[in-house]
Amino acid sequence: MRTINLIATGGTIEKVYSEQSGVVLNSDRKIGHYLELLRLPDCEVHVIPLLNKDSLEMTSEDRVKLASEMRRLLPEGHPIVITHGTDTIMETGLYVQKAFPDLQVPVVLTGAMTPLGFEGSDGLQNLTESLMAARLLGPGVFVVMHGQVFPTDHVCKNRELATFVWTEPA
Amino acid sequence: MRTINLIATGGTIEKVYSEQSGVVLNSDRKIGHYLELLRLPDCEVHVIPLLNKDSLEMTSEDRVKLASEMRRLLPEGHPIVITHGTDTIMETGLYVQKAFPDLQVPVVLTGAMTPLGFEGSDGLQNLTESLMAARLLGPGVFVVMHGQVFPTDHVCKNRELATFVWTEPA
Amino acid sequence: MRTINLIATGGTIEKVYSEQSGVVLNSDRKIGHYLELLRLPDCEVHVIPLLNKDSLEMTSEDRVKLASEMRRLLPEGHPIVITHGTDTIMETGLYVQKAFPDLQVPVVLTGAMTPLGFEGSDGLQNLTESLMAARLLGPGVFVVMHGQVFPTDHVCKNRELATFVWTEPA
Amino acid sequence: MRTINLIATGGTIEKVYSEQSGVVLNSDRKIGHYLELLRLPDCEVHVIPLLNKDSLEMTSEDRVKLASEMRRLLPEGHPIVITHGTDTIMETGLYVQKAFPDLQVPVVLTGAMTPLGFEGSDGLQNLTESLMAARLLGPGVFVVMHGQVFPTDHVCKNRELATFVWTEPA
Repeated sequence: MRTINLIATGGTIEKVYSEQSGVVLNSDRKIGHYLELLRLPDCEVHVIPLLNKDSLEMTSEDRVKLASEMRRLLPEGHPIVITHGTDTIMETGLYVQKAFPDLQVPVVLTGAMTPLGFEGSDGLQNLTESLMAARLLGPGVFVVMHGQVFPTDHVCKNRELATFVWTEPA
Repeated sequence: MRTINLIATGGTIEKVYSEQSGVVLNSDRKIGHYLELLRLPDCEVHVIPLLNKDSLEMTSEDRVKLASEMRRLLPEGHPIVITHGTDTIMETGLYVQKAFPDLQVPVVLTGAMTPLGFEGSDGLQNLTESLMAARLLGPGVFVVMHGQVFPTDHVCKNRELATFVWTEPA
Repeated sequence: MRTINLIATGGTIEKVYSEQSGVVLNSDRKIGHYLELLRLPDCEVHVIPLLNKDSLEMTSEDRVKLASEMRRLLPEGHPIVITHGTDTIMETGLYVQKAFPDLQVPVVLTGAMTPLGFEGSDGLQNLTESLMAARLLGPGVFVVMHGQVFPTDHVCKNRELATFVWTEPA
Repeated sequence: MRTINLIATGGTIEKVYSEQSGVVLNSDRKIGHYLELLRLPDCEVHVIPLLNKDSLEMTSEDRVKLASEMRRLLPEGHPIVITHGTDTIMETGLYVQKAFPDLQVPVVLTGAMTPLGFEGSDGLQNLTESLMAARLLGPGVFVVMHGQVFPTDHVCKNRELATFVWTEPA
């Protein structure tokens, strides 16, 4: 049995619609429920609910907290998937890449443009792809979304196209 | 073949999630698409897209416009379903009741707490129930939602319970 | 709080796909799960799982069993919904009508052309409509499906159109 | 823009429920519709509807036809995904491996235990995983299903577990 550690930090992928306020926000957790819809007979996905916030509100302390959690998990030798808001997923990816220059496993960041369970959501697709990519990729930090695999220093969000595209490292 | 005239005014039932802004809002129309999921072999539902706004933003002019459209449709002798935001559905119901004291057909107002197509949405349930109620009810103005049928002057929204409940007329 | 008694007898509406045999069949129950998707704040639906079979295999003994269950439930004074296979729903409807000539509540028979949960299923629509019709109809035996309400002695299945249509009583 | 050629041969993944006969069978095509639910901004999936049959009915002629189609496509240099019934997916995989000993691209076979669009279906998961695997794997013939990636000569179906498991080559 393989293991993948999935660190959930919130973001659009895990937003819910609030009937009281009429807005979408990060409150309850969703990843666990949607993972149960996938059949993964040889793989245990261990979900770690670290944060639940819009990535525009993610602070330096939050990223330190993420790195601290990763430091705890990496010695287990399992791939890591991080669900994250798309607005600052690149910043977090670069931060992780810098914090862990000698990764022995793939770290895959993913998210969604539309929350899990909303019509037309890309969340389950991205989650499915990320788990497959985490099995097949070598060590490194990647963003996986919409069938695409980017090294974290070659990706940027294209808001107009509602997806991610290749870019040159700064 | 029967006919039901459905006047769409917006409200939560027809809200969409905007990937650009991260909010839910009334922009595209949804009712027509979801009606196609229903099998209604002996009934033609004629959708009239009158407005597309949050019912908190509905003005007196909007209600005059609604009454004007109803005045055009009522001589056809068909039931009318009105999809509407839940926040002011009672105001509109009472307005319609006052404007048309001699209705010969049922007028059914409905809406949703969660937009059509979002997980856990009550939109398709309410739409299905309203079309059935429009067939079975006699003349009058009703709010139909969550398996319930209220005369429009006996209903109020209970935000805490996220539904509608009976109330005494003012 | 209202009560509706729902007697489940199987039929297509409750069929499941068997991965072992590659066929659809009546084995597990489904009605309870799908009812939970509906919001019915003022109504308790009491599900009685009586039978779980294709209606072509329904025997005289099965109909006697159904009538016996109804005899037990009717004194409660609540509407009854019966989920049933479509192939012999009329026979059962006529049997019920004959067995209970003095009904004080509506008895609504319904079913589906495609099982609950399969793409394009009419099951949840029919279930939703039946619960609404059970609230609004007067005493009698009815078949409710596809937005239509038939007295049980005026309906027949039209296999070609995959729905039910009006017919003259024999 | 990348290209993936997807050869559809039928199997459970593409079965539909027939309201006329009450059985699931291979008649209409489904893959194209479900592919449209995936966001693949940098990849064009070219669907080739070759066959539409239960894989237990696949003949030697059918496999020759498949090889012939592959011979036409392989010079394009694009990965190939083959949707296939699960009962003989290994036979076809071994046949393809033998017929094309010098593959320059990955050939990924996939299918489903439950048809696309049925509740609990693994079809869209397997399709999503296969497209991701076709991007990341090197040349060879693979079976991708349920988050797993098998070389075609190391896999067998486990009917009891309703999945695929590792096995030693014969």
